[in-house]
Amino acid sequence: MTTRIVELRRGILKKNDELAAELRARFNSAGVLVLNLVSSPGTGKTEFLERTLRELRARGAQAAALVGDLETDNDARRLAASGAPVRQINTHGICHLDAEMISKHLEGWEGVSLDGLNYLFIENVGNLVCPSSYDLGERIRVALLSVTEGEDKPLKYPGLFNSADAAVITKIDLAEPCGFDRELALRNLNEIRPGIRIFETSAKTGAGMEPWLNYLVEQAHAS
Amino acid sequence: MTTRIVELRRGILKKNDELAAELRARFNSAGVLVLNLVSSPGTGKTEFLERTLRELRARGAQAAALVGDLETDNDARRLAASGAPVRQINTHGICHLDAEMISKHLEGWEGVSLDGLNYLFIENVGNLVCPSSYDLGERIRVALLSVTEGEDKPLKYPGLFNSADAAVITKIDLAEPCGFDRELALRNLNEIRPGIRIFETSAKTGAGMEPWLNYLVEQAHAS
Repeated sequence: MTTRIVELRRGILKKNDELAAELRARFNSAGVLVLNLVSSPGTGKTEFLERTLRELRARGAQAAALVGDLETDNDARRLAASGAPVRQINTHGICHLDAEMISKHLEGWEGVSLDGLNYLFIENVGNLVCPSSYDLGERIRVALLSVTEGEDKPLKYPGLFNSADAAVITKIDLAEPCGFDRELALRNLNEIRPGIRIFETSAKTGAGMEPWLNYLVEQAHAS
Repeated sequence: MTTRIVELRRGILKKNDELAAELRARFNSAGVLVLNLVSSPGTGKTEFLERTLRELRARGAQAAALVGDLETDNDARRLAASGAPVRQINTHGICHLDAEMISKHLEGWEGVSLDGLNYLFIENVGNLVCPSSYDLGERIRVALLSVTEGEDKPLKYPGLFNSADAAVITKIDLAEPCGFDRELALRNLNEIRPGIRIFETSAKTGAGMEPWLNYLVEQAHAS
């Protein structure tokens, strides 16, 4: 049974990779920078993304977001507070987004065309395992890690962290009450993904948002 | 392809359920209370369990733990500080424990026999999706939720929370800096799993551990 599962899984991933490559080509030709945000549930992806969308819009950029959850449209409603167009994807029991879900939700998205966007953020389902194998056609995969959840997460979930292009440490306003060991977290991230770009942020206070926003602008220009 | 996956998945779950039923019979006949702890990564399962093991041992009970992670034996080493026997299970990419892993790791566990135990805790892989479908033969499934990760998690991951017998809110020492909305969290837990037993704890300060330990003693006697 295990062999059949492995074969089927390989087939599914191959199909996903092909569709992701098509999406990537579409995104590139439209000139939109696409980022896939992955993390544990509760890392603060939504709050971080809401602030990112708001600040990008304040700088005159066009940004939109797709957000994945098993159930509820809570996150889409929270993100919509930024003023950016947002669309919820409910996976109903599936622990990750896949390229087909992205492709489907780009269709018929009222008021949004890829050509008019500078940035498209995809907030994945909160999970440190399943999303790592599924390419969504993004150019940049961002792994988030909050100061509340333990410095050892990169070591315990290497597959997710070593497939990321950048890491964002969130909730640094809570670093002190949590006894967060910053040096250890940076060392662990670098052990799993040597040289990874790391941003240390608080969406609540705004600390560290500036370097992150500058990075986005740089990356958008580099496309 | 989807139909074949569904059929294979059904077969795997059926096989798991059968093995879990055998494990449950073994645990019952040995008189050991078995608990399966599930949560997001970073909820604080290990710190909570370490304190639980230590306090149970101080009361003269025999308690042991199996702990699942994709990689590393960090958690086994942390739990061993309690003085209890602990064994690490590495799943190498699998996002949950299954009954077969439990069965295998009960064999040849030096110095541990089920007959000599009052409590066996199984700390599952940190994940709010995958562990919910896999019965490990436990009598009590405990879903943990930290004050740092958002009150809406039960609504967003109903499958995990509605398969739990008890819920433990962790890190209540951080409730204030996190702006934790206690009433909302309790309401959401009760919406997904009406009447669920809820414990509010801090493994750091020891707050709320007493009712939890009393619950364990009650449940052990009820077996």
